[in-house]
Amino acid sequence: MSELSVDHLLGIKNLSTEDINLIFQTADQFKEVINRPIRKVPSLRDITIANLFFENSTRTRLSFELAEKRLSADTVNFSASSSSVSKGETLIDTVNNILSMKVDMVVMRHPNPGAAVFLSQNVDSTIVNAGDGAHEHPTQALLDAFSMREKHNDLKGKKVVIVGDILHSRVALSNIFCLQKLGAEVRVCGPTTLIPKYIHTLGVEVSHNLQESLEWCDVANMLRVQHERQDIKYFPSVREYTQQFGLTLPMLDSLKKDITIMHPGPINRGVEITSEVADSDYSIILNQVENGVAIRMAVLYLLASKKKMNFKG
Amino acid sequence: MSELSVDHLLGIKNLSTEDINLIFQTADQFKEVINRPIRKVPSLRDITIANLFFENSTRTRLSFELAEKRLSADTVNFSASSSSVSKGETLIDTVNNILSMKVDMVVMRHPNPGAAVFLSQNVDSTIVNAGDGAHEHPTQALLDAFSMREKHNDLKGKKVVIVGDILHSRVALSNIFCLQKLGAEVRVCGPTTLIPKYIHTLGVEVSHNLQESLEWCDVANMLRVQHERQDIKYFPSVREYTQQFGLTLPMLDSLKKDITIMHPGPINRGVEITSEVADSDYSIILNQVENGVAIRMAVLYLLASKKKMNFKG
Amino acid sequence: MSELSVDHLLGIKNLSTEDINLIFQTADQFKEVINRPIRKVPSLRDITIANLFFENSTRTRLSFELAEKRLSADTVNFSASSSSVSKGETLIDTVNNILSMKVDMVVMRHPNPGAAVFLSQNVDSTIVNAGDGAHEHPTQALLDAFSMREKHNDLKGKKVVIVGDILHSRVALSNIFCLQKLGAEVRVCGPTTLIPKYIHTLGVEVSHNLQESLEWCDVANMLRVQHERQDIKYFPSVREYTQQFGLTLPMLDSLKKDITIMHPGPINRGVEITSEVADSDYSIILNQVENGVAIRMAVLYLLASKKKMNFKG
Repeated sequence: MSELSVDHLLGIKNLSTEDINLIFQTADQFKEVINRPIRKVPSLRDITIANLFFENSTRTRLSFELAEKRLSADTVNFSASSSSVSKGETLIDTVNNILSMKVDMVVMRHPNPGAAVFLSQNVDSTIVNAGDGAHEHPTQALLDAFSMREKHNDLKGKKVVIVGDILHSRVALSNIFCLQKLGAEVRVCGPTTLIPKYIHTLGVEVSHNLQESLEWCDVANMLRVQHERQDIKYFPSVREYTQQFGLTLPMLDSLKKDITIMHPGPINRGVEITSEVADSDYSIILNQVENGVAIRMAVLYLLASKKKMNFKG
Repeated sequence: MSELSVDHLLGIKNLSTEDINLIFQTADQFKEVINRPIRKVPSLRDITIANLFFENSTRTRLSFELAEKRLSADTVNFSASSSSVSKGETLIDTVNNILSMKVDMVVMRHPNPGAAVFLSQNVDSTIVNAGDGAHEHPTQALLDAFSMREKHNDLKGKKVVIVGDILHSRVALSNIFCLQKLGAEVRVCGPTTLIPKYIHTLGVEVSHNLQESLEWCDVANMLRVQHERQDIKYFPSVREYTQQFGLTLPMLDSLKKDITIMHPGPINRGVEITSEVADSDYSIILNQVENGVAIRMAVLYLLASKKKMNFKG
Repeated sequence: MSELSVDHLLGIKNLSTEDINLIFQTADQFKEVINRPIRKVPSLRDITIANLFFENSTRTRLSFELAEKRLSADTVNFSASSSSVSKGETLIDTVNNILSMKVDMVVMRHPNPGAAVFLSQNVDSTIVNAGDGAHEHPTQALLDAFSMREKHNDLKGKKVVIVGDILHSRVALSNIFCLQKLGAEVRVCGPTTLIPKYIHTLGVEVSHNLQESLEWCDVANMLRVQHERQDIKYFPSVREYTQQFGLTLPMLDSLKKDITIMHPGPINRGVEITSEVADSDYSIILNQVENGVAIRMAVLYLLASKKKMNFKG
């Protein structure tokens, strides 16, 4: 029987291609489960999972919570503003306290890049990174790649463009790592101000032209424009962004090919994509959300299995 | 076997009298259940329900949550300020995302009148309206009528007065519809400024005299005075309101009849009713709360049954 | 079979020594349960518990919630700012409403001293005090004493010093009562401004010298410095406090004895104790957290048993 090479899910960077494929095969099975009339399996009946969200994220938290409930795990939720947990030391104390209550796994969203890695080095528990700042968000990248694979079978040689605010995205980096490990070619597309300088070192092409990128790719992953970052000193403005990088249905139709449109949500309809695009047959946006629960079930299940096997060994 | 004529509970307006009676008969059975030592039934064991509260409402949320747990459903909770969900488009996206996670039913409280109807027309899920602005709050009206029926057996020909701020109430309209469908006579009583002009079109008498209304009625439903609306430009003030429309125990005793006092809660003791009235034998206020869980169990159970039967058909 | 002498857990003051020992013996058994692979017992399967937190307290709420889940109880959570429940009347109404929904037990944290006692006199339910202002916090005192007993076997004749802000602590009073009932000698140590005048009436020695207190005691319970109370008019400042009452590892090592260090959490590392002390073998801080779940399971279980036995009688 296969198992993951890692004890935590901290990022995609340190997963092997075999790990990713094992997660996908397990998620295939759980996707069948959640489409049955009876959606629960007793796999994690005696496991307690703490969801620690030091930053708001309704949809990620709900998706993890449903994954946990469908695995029959017990869950406790903890939300805190990051201000009350400003020092690493205090984060360790907070988590150690929760672990002392016999919690088996910790799912953590934290605003600081590296928080999940730091935690895994300092506490004795299985850690699942649910997003650490603009660093990694591995389950999102896994569900994105899983959704592409569902439509395109194999990602080897497929061309994927990630469009938008690469610099501040918590999704871009994990997606790049994941797609490359699966053999896809990755390009980013957006305004110069929103693409980090180091992107070239990752083997990723850069484009500033949406039309050209659409012609090139099989899949376009349209990132959310973060309105809250848009102020007067900021270039481009939302209006300028939409003019240059907003995706419309006529643009897609004129390509005359089976292009796949993705979006990590929540969508700003009429900004990065129009409503027609979001609701079109090109879009697999709601499949991404559905697959999120199956992927998270697979990750939690495989990490829990690994831990138990270690205990036995 | 009987079933509801509707696929959603959006309001009382589109329920038939048979629907209301079916809900009451089902609630009778669930009321027995929740008074047993073992209060849970496995009826909704494989159903996932999302409670979406876009507005605070502790007691309604708790009542739905307990109803769901006693039916053995899985629940997820989502609370949001209405500001973050200001456009209908975004509401649909939010709910569609949650539904993609394989949620079966949505219980929604929303500040905008019509939000529940809008949602039922735009997403593929069973919707239960837990209050949409000052429009409908159907489960409250059902539990109110159920509680009256418990004391008075049949509401046919019974006289009910709704006292207070009819204009801003989320309870008044649903109550009027429900009582009329059950054959009761309904009157509203309050200051002119708090009674909507259209009320006459509903076949409802209007009174501005509490004493006279009490003499006329079998049941008085005393609405909450909403302090937060009381500002300097507002007439009447809370003090004036209490002088003209506040209910005291001597007023009730002097009637020399078996009048029933109701209140949807939370009570402002000493404003719309005195503490003596709230705690007197006239009051069935805590019965209303108890019956709320049974009514909500009945509504959720009947809607889930309907949906499953449709699937089979 | 033994049972508690009380129907509620309002404080340590009205518990007998037999009650405390019965709770400890029951907690011993539950501690075994939560260290098994299968951590749940069906003891409270048909019991519904409401956790009413009128004041934030993440770790106490989590500990109670885990205790309830491991006893298989159903739980509902209610959080409110104290401002919305400023009058006793309203507190009774709030709780009576929740009880009308057939809730069996209420766990309450409230900022007002006496709130739990007041509630137990005015509503018909089993009340567990999870902290009422600076008055009592009985489960914390029980888990503290249980943790000392685990290390020192019998507390009879043991010397315990409670160090810090005794005046504003929600922990000190319950600890003093509990330790005295178990035969320990108790001393408090801190700056004059943070020790209440009435402390002498409780048979408790007062010291203003940490070094001397450490030489005297077997156990030192180091209370949290409440930064939020520290303003310019306040004496001592945090810096002055740390200089006079902060505990360091060299101080402990120089004692050349098996002293036990406790802390109710959350720790301000470097203020009341250094990191080295917190993480040293002297410290049983994480044992306290672990024991909290077992103690709360024992209290909930014993109170539920008592109630059922009364019903049968």
